[in-house]
Amino acid sequence: GGGGGGRGGAEGGQGASPDEVVRLCELVLDYSVRTSSPLFFNQLYGRVDPVGLAAENVLSTLNTNAFTWEVAPVFTTLERALVQRLVRVFGLPEGSEGLFVPGGSMANMYGMHSARYAKVGAAVKSGGLMAAGGQLVGFCSADAHYSYAKGANFIGIGTENMLSVPVDHSPEGRGSMRVDALEEMILAAKAEGKIPFMVGATSGTTVYGGFDDAVALREVCDRHGMWLHLDGAWGGAAAFGGEGGAARELSRGMGLADSLSWNPHKMMGAPLQCSVFLTRRLKGGGGLREVNGCQAHYCFQEDKNFPEEDMGDMTLHCSRRADSFKLWLLWKAVGDAGMAHRVDEAVRLARRFTDLAMDKAALEELGVQGSFVVWRNQAPFYCNVCFYYVPPSLAWAEGGGAPFWELPKDDERARRISRVAPYVKDRMQRAGTCGMMGFCGKHNHFRLVIASPIGLSDQDMVRLILDIDAEGKGYQEPPPPPPPPP
Amino acid sequence: GGGGGGRGGAEGGQGASPDEVVRLCELVLDYSVRTSSPLFFNQLYGRVDPVGLAAENVLSTLNTNAFTWEVAPVFTTLERALVQRLVRVFGLPEGSEGLFVPGGSMANMYGMHSARYAKVGAAVKSGGLMAAGGQLVGFCSADAHYSYAKGANFIGIGTENMLSVPVDHSPEGRGSMRVDALEEMILAAKAEGKIPFMVGATSGTTVYGGFDDAVALREVCDRHGMWLHLDGAWGGAAAFGGEGGAARELSRGMGLADSLSWNPHKMMGAPLQCSVFLTRRLKGGGGLREVNGCQAHYCFQEDKNFPEEDMGDMTLHCSRRADSFKLWLLWKAVGDAGMAHRVDEAVRLARRFTDLAMDKAALEELGVQGSFVVWRNQAPFYCNVCFYYVPPSLAWAEGGGAPFWELPKDDERARRISRVAPYVKDRMQRAGTCGMMGFCGKHNHFRLVIASPIGLSDQDMVRLILDIDAEGKGYQEPPPPPPPPP
Repeated sequence: GGGGGGRGGAEGGQGASPDEVVRLCELVLDYSVRTSSPLFFNQLYGRVDPVGLAAENVLSTLNTNAFTWEVAPVFTTLERALVQRLVRVFGLPEGSEGLFVPGGSMANMYGMHSARYAKVGAAVKSGGLMAAGGQLVGFCSADAHYSYAKGANFIGIGTENMLSVPVDHSPEGRGSMRVDALEEMILAAKAEGKIPFMVGATSGTTVYGGFDDAVALREVCDRHGMWLHLDGAWGGAAAFGGEGGAARELSRGMGLADSLSWNPHKMMGAPLQCSVFLTRRLKGGGGLREVNGCQAHYCFQEDKNFPEEDMGDMTLHCSRRADSFKLWLLWKAVGDAGMAHRVDEAVRLARRFTDLAMDKAALEELGVQGSFVVWRNQAPFYCNVCFYYVPPSLAWAEGGGAPFWELPKDDERARRISRVAPYVKDRMQRAGTCGMMGFCGKHNHFRLVIASPIGLSDQDMVRLILDIDAEGKGYQEPPPPPPPPP
Repeated sequence: GGGGGGRGGAEGGQGASPDEVVRLCELVLDYSVRTSSPLFFNQLYGRVDPVGLAAENVLSTLNTNAFTWEVAPVFTTLERALVQRLVRVFGLPEGSEGLFVPGGSMANMYGMHSARYAKVGAAVKSGGLMAAGGQLVGFCSADAHYSYAKGANFIGIGTENMLSVPVDHSPEGRGSMRVDALEEMILAAKAEGKIPFMVGATSGTTVYGGFDDAVALREVCDRHGMWLHLDGAWGGAAAFGGEGGAARELSRGMGLADSLSWNPHKMMGAPLQCSVFLTRRLKGGGGLREVNGCQAHYCFQEDKNFPEEDMGDMTLHCSRRADSFKLWLLWKAVGDAGMAHRVDEAVRLARRFTDLAMDKAALEELGVQGSFVVWRNQAPFYCNVCFYYVPPSLAWAEGGGAPFWELPKDDERARRISRVAPYVKDRMQRAGTCGMMGFCGKHNHFRLVIASPIGLSDQDMVRLILDIDAEGKGYQEPPPPPPPPP
């Protein structure tokens, strides 16, 4: 009798014993990557904040669905308050709204979806893209995250109608899309009879940590009646940087966007997933409820207590985790000062690593045998450090002509240096020293992202250099393939 | 020095003390709804499985991102294996694929997106909906979940192009969409020059627990070259029911769908979120990677070890929680027999409640003073029990003419009975007795869903009846509004 699901012995279809379940958990833990190491470096996420983890455990225990107020009174109230606090941090206008959504890609798609609604009007919601009366086109930087492409696929614009704008990688350009090129492309699209509807800006590009110029893009968007969405999934954290610091400066103009994404599960160490979408209300009063809602009376009962508090019909989802609580609690714990320190410290450590990698004398003193070539010989824009490691056996390649980043894809030197990073990464993975660091680029270069500075020190930056050299200095090129049989 | 984010005192922007953080967690727990009560009845989710909760805690601790194999080796491997097991349970063909996605709405949108690709071809991915050469239209039952409408909005089809097919609510009809009406609507759409591309079927409708006839729909879809997606978010669990049982019978033909959604966070008690999307590979070999991918080399490095194991480019997202582990572990713990028992027990308890509610003599013996009117005087199709409670003061309304469910929206008797459920629910909420039970319908009727039978007994069904009567029997109609001043 009683409830569903007995707990039988291990045999047959009867289920495992509690001891066996514990053993399975241990096995999973043993064979999984320790993301809690300060030296865990991965694509834009890092060591988790311990208070954020405590919040996650509270959420799991409550198993709350943030779709109605009656089942999630605390988290609904808290999410609304937190969103308003974020609206102020990013400098969005009073009355802006927001939602925590499952990931930065979804947040960017909310932005594209809102942009479409803003351009075409409510007819696009009922009648679909046919109501646009032409092909919508959007623009993002060539270095933008692929969620703009996936979003263009998903919302029915088509990937080839999300156009890539060339990027200025100079220190002054900060990895931003070239506004002159953007405006030319908009005019060309109009001349072809297409309908430019949005610019997808980026604050903190995935590889180089570049920042688009929101102030200039706002002007372009106003001139052409376009929506400005800002993908701040990674770089949104810059808005929390200390007054007058480099990070805060990068965040200039973020509040001019029509909508904005930010992932506290990146820089701030909130457990995965924790992503927020913020948006201005459209002219004429349209907000999240108008753009996304569809008034399902069976879920959002009109006659119950406080139906106006439900957030569910503001979303494109139904069930929704109360992810906002993780950011809320960790922010309480570290305060504004702690949030600022976290960002500024990540920027400082990225520059510290860069300075060391560019200091030949210091490396020699450390006994480093290979050499480090920092991408474009310049300081990182934000917390992403891109660099090549050149083992002693390839020392000739460093001096021999144009720098690596200028080499065409099929260049022989490029091909040869491209083999080094995968080799070193493989050895670091096997040795267990920060094995997750990525590589990428036209040719493989290392990409070290200080996504979470929690527990990281200057000494760790030295250690990283030494670990890379230790695993890489013995690199020998593979022998040439044997000649084909005659 | 050291890592980011100091833990200062409580004052100013310096952050809260550890004691204060603990106090905030306690406060949140105190004011939140106890979803772990067996008597927690909400829209399609219920008491969590304790082993599922343990799995959630393992996931939180590891904070793993299931986008690449190198960071999620265990969970990637496990997700693939679990998906293949689900493919067999649902009877999908060998070679079908799947993904855990953030919620059933997203899973349904994956289905709509895949359907569009299947109809139009790869051109829709690059060129957008314009490549369809006409207006796509889809069909779902009038009782389908609103995610089909939200999806039509999101993917650019437009809500008015996701057409509602009338439903047969008779016991034989099982709440399914009328296949004859569907076919007429398809022909009418074609005659208007539109392009029917999908049927969005439902296994387990939100309110009545109705099941569409997958076998008949497969034939219709084959005849008209349409994709069959099956929203089994709620009713997919029926496929786990015991051989020969009512639940298993409801699942007949699920494997004929082209794609299918299921939320183990509903019936099986996996913690929120836990949703799976399963799909056949398209003719010609196209699968999730072709439909959704965009080969971002900076995330899915080609030269690293085992790049072919990454699941990230099969998704429309980037970061993704390893939700599959929750189902995997709880399934291990209860075994196939435990999974079957859970479903069959939910069906049994729903029928038990219904039998009692329809048994006037038994209710009298229990001292119940009001009366219960079960929707359409029939057994539930699945685990959703819809019923009216009639307090003694409205006893006249029960016998006076057509049954409630046949009354038009503006009928006086309907208006009056519609006030009862919100009143009783409000009182039950204040008393703390299963306060989350929903109400809905053309006029408010109660909707009791046995979403999780864990810890529920026959005695609880009696207790529910008594609690409703205790809070409802004193109901008095509000006085008529005073006449307007002369």
